[in-house]
Amino acid sequence: MTFSIRDLSLDLRSGELSPTEHVRDVLDRLRGDTTNAVVTLDEERALADAAARTEELGRGEWRGPLHGVAVGVKDIIDVEGLPTRCGSAVLADAAPAEADNPVVARLREAGAVVVGKLHTHEFAYGPTGDVSVSGPARNPHDPTRITGGSSSGSAAAVAAGHLALTLGTDTGASVRVPAALCGVVGLKPTRGRLSTERVFPLSDTCDHVGVLTADVHGASVVWDVLARPDGTGGGIQQPGVSGVRIGVPTGPYWEAADPVIVETTRDAVARLEKAGAQITEIEIPAIDELAPLYFTIVNAEAYATHRDLLAARRADYQPATLERLEPNANLTATEYIDAQRARVRLTAEIRTACDGIDALVLPTTRVRATPIGAESVEVGGRDVTVRPALLALTLPFNLTGWPAVSVPGRVDQGELPVGVQIAGVRLEERGVLRVAAAIERS
Amino acid sequence: MTFSIRDLSLDLRSGELSPTEHVRDVLDRLRGDTTNAVVTLDEERALADAAARTEELGRGEWRGPLHGVAVGVKDIIDVEGLPTRCGSAVLADAAPAEADNPVVARLREAGAVVVGKLHTHEFAYGPTGDVSVSGPARNPHDPTRITGGSSSGSAAAVAAGHLALTLGTDTGASVRVPAALCGVVGLKPTRGRLSTERVFPLSDTCDHVGVLTADVHGASVVWDVLARPDGTGGGIQQPGVSGVRIGVPTGPYWEAADPVIVETTRDAVARLEKAGAQITEIEIPAIDELAPLYFTIVNAEAYATHRDLLAARRADYQPATLERLEPNANLTATEYIDAQRARVRLTAEIRTACDGIDALVLPTTRVRATPIGAESVEVGGRDVTVRPALLALTLPFNLTGWPAVSVPGRVDQGELPVGVQIAGVRLEERGVLRVAAAIERS
Repeated sequence: MTFSIRDLSLDLRSGELSPTEHVRDVLDRLRGDTTNAVVTLDEERALADAAARTEELGRGEWRGPLHGVAVGVKDIIDVEGLPTRCGSAVLADAAPAEADNPVVARLREAGAVVVGKLHTHEFAYGPTGDVSVSGPARNPHDPTRITGGSSSGSAAAVAAGHLALTLGTDTGASVRVPAALCGVVGLKPTRGRLSTERVFPLSDTCDHVGVLTADVHGASVVWDVLARPDGTGGGIQQPGVSGVRIGVPTGPYWEAADPVIVETTRDAVARLEKAGAQITEIEIPAIDELAPLYFTIVNAEAYATHRDLLAARRADYQPATLERLEPNANLTATEYIDAQRARVRLTAEIRTACDGIDALVLPTTRVRATPIGAESVEVGGRDVTVRPALLALTLPFNLTGWPAVSVPGRVDQGELPVGVQIAGVRLEERGVLRVAAAIERS
Repeated sequence: MTFSIRDLSLDLRSGELSPTEHVRDVLDRLRGDTTNAVVTLDEERALADAAARTEELGRGEWRGPLHGVAVGVKDIIDVEGLPTRCGSAVLADAAPAEADNPVVARLREAGAVVVGKLHTHEFAYGPTGDVSVSGPARNPHDPTRITGGSSSGSAAAVAAGHLALTLGTDTGASVRVPAALCGVVGLKPTRGRLSTERVFPLSDTCDHVGVLTADVHGASVVWDVLARPDGTGGGIQQPGVSGVRIGVPTGPYWEAADPVIVETTRDAVARLEKAGAQITEIEIPAIDELAPLYFTIVNAEAYATHRDLLAARRADYQPATLERLEPNANLTATEYIDAQRARVRLTAEIRTACDGIDALVLPTTRVRATPIGAESVEVGGRDVTVRPALLALTLPFNLTGWPAVSVPGRVDQGELPVGVQIAGVRLEERGVLRVAAAIERS
């Protein structure tokens, strides 16, 4: 169903498929999309760029593994010439962006062809992907269920096989959770590694740009392009996980509600152990103090961003977004500053608790894709509130800023996807991707 | 009156003066101090450390140019074994600090001998140095006048010739302003270069640790020790200012109230020009928007720090400190976040306005040392409010985080000192010290 950057890139380089043919095919698929993943197509520029990339290949010029690869961009990230509407009627009359976000610009330099803008939860302020002026995004595995969010369209478009690569953003969940619910790979790099310039802010201090692909190899190729100043991409080494020290967080906070998620994660850990990783169960008591800070910080920063828009265009917001934004008007500077200070202190404590650990392996979410619009669900015999169940396991790594990736775990045929999350303590992006690859291969 | 690290260091290395003799002499002077610069002496440890440094020299072991040099530390910075009382009755029963602040530790490693803790404006929350549980610090040039603050004792002790080196902190003014008013050199390095760990916070995002010395050579020696990981100090090169591009900020914001300050600064700039620097007048319109952010940011962070202490020990604060702290209880998170965002934006704008400029040269303060307790003074035929007149010209570089040094300018015999400030735009610490040296030499 999905398609990999590896295969695509080989076909493009060999001439089996030209960038123009590929982009035409992608545009056809996106026009026929049934997941509501697409917000804006940039057909004219995409075809012109594809033609230019095709000509370059004809002259023997190859920009690297993303040469000619179509990419879709979450509609909260600026793409030159297209409006950034953030899934909201508030920005219905937004002017076309004057320039690309630097990550978009870097992908173009590396040969990728931007085809358009993708669905986002309104203003990226929610992990479900079903609150947007253009209606809910639909999970390719079951159209009655959510994609997860807020990078809803970015995950759905990869999962539906429309695109091999999309860009998203992740403030607490927003790349990894939709990747998990849709069964694709989502990488949130270390905080600050990818520029959030020309991204509509949700939380200046928690926002990350991230990438979504069909498989770990694809994410590794893209990371290599983005991380290397010379942009040549290059050979991906995945030397396995022998000797890597994996921590498995234990305690009530970290428990998934869905028994299938528990089982899939256990299976992934067992496979890592079999591949030579050292597994240690680890307690992180500071998590109970850390997690609530997320809401103080993100809500305060989101309110500061939206205050003027709320005054001017309150009626244009989705009701669910208003419900979350408005109660934050009275947060005091002290509450916010206390939270930022505690964040620094607790991140150091958690790093100490993770002494001797290279990476953490845990579920990406506590539940799998829930029905569109459902605020709570019954899972494993218990009532579970959807939003915290989606956010809880990913948000710690936005506060700490550590790199984290969600990779599909093994489930039975026909089951909804499960994401297994790898968060780097000492490992950087290439390290967590190596662990993810070992889970994917097994 | 003052003494230089250069002469002292030569005497200590040659055996002309032993560390023990030097430290005994310093302790004698500090016991007889009349500027109220001293809060706590650590005679026992200072003499033991001096003896150890003396023995090392006897064995031919020399730690570098600070070997055996006595240092005093502002009583807001932790020194192992001594309480950190921050000039306040609120912390009268503070336990001895368990460890040194890292800058203190680094100075000790480099051979310096900590002799005690020095006067600070209460909680470093003021630029005058006359608000403290132990009464006002007194300017060595005129005991009826303020030292400036908040590193009041650190400036007075160097100006009085008690010490060749002291440590202070600078959140908006607090190293440079007392240095200017007392006629010594004060260096505020780039934000983040010197650790503020184990410093009682005034504003986490504006606090800097800095150094005060009798002359620019001394500050350069200390900076070399602190900046070099191997701690060997080493030869100071001061190749002059030929070709250095100096910006002189113009416009009402930057004007000193005191005609002597105007004249002294003009003289310093003329001397730089004569020494080969290129002088350009420069407008920085963003300053009018930047400066007010300082108060929002610092007041919000100070209130967050003090909230619990205010609830527990309100009566122990000096009235002037309460007056400044308490109105900040109702600052909203939005006001604070807006200010931090504007700070980032305006810093970038000011850097752009300073295109083609290596450093700015301007007065350190708008007025010279004012009478103790005076809230306003008449200067140059105008009524001037003291606090803003002391803060205005230094605080911009706490917001931008750029390195800045205050060096005594040329005044007539018997006149109160004037500080000339050099702030690095492209120049780092060694660069601004080089410009300061050119002003000092001339």
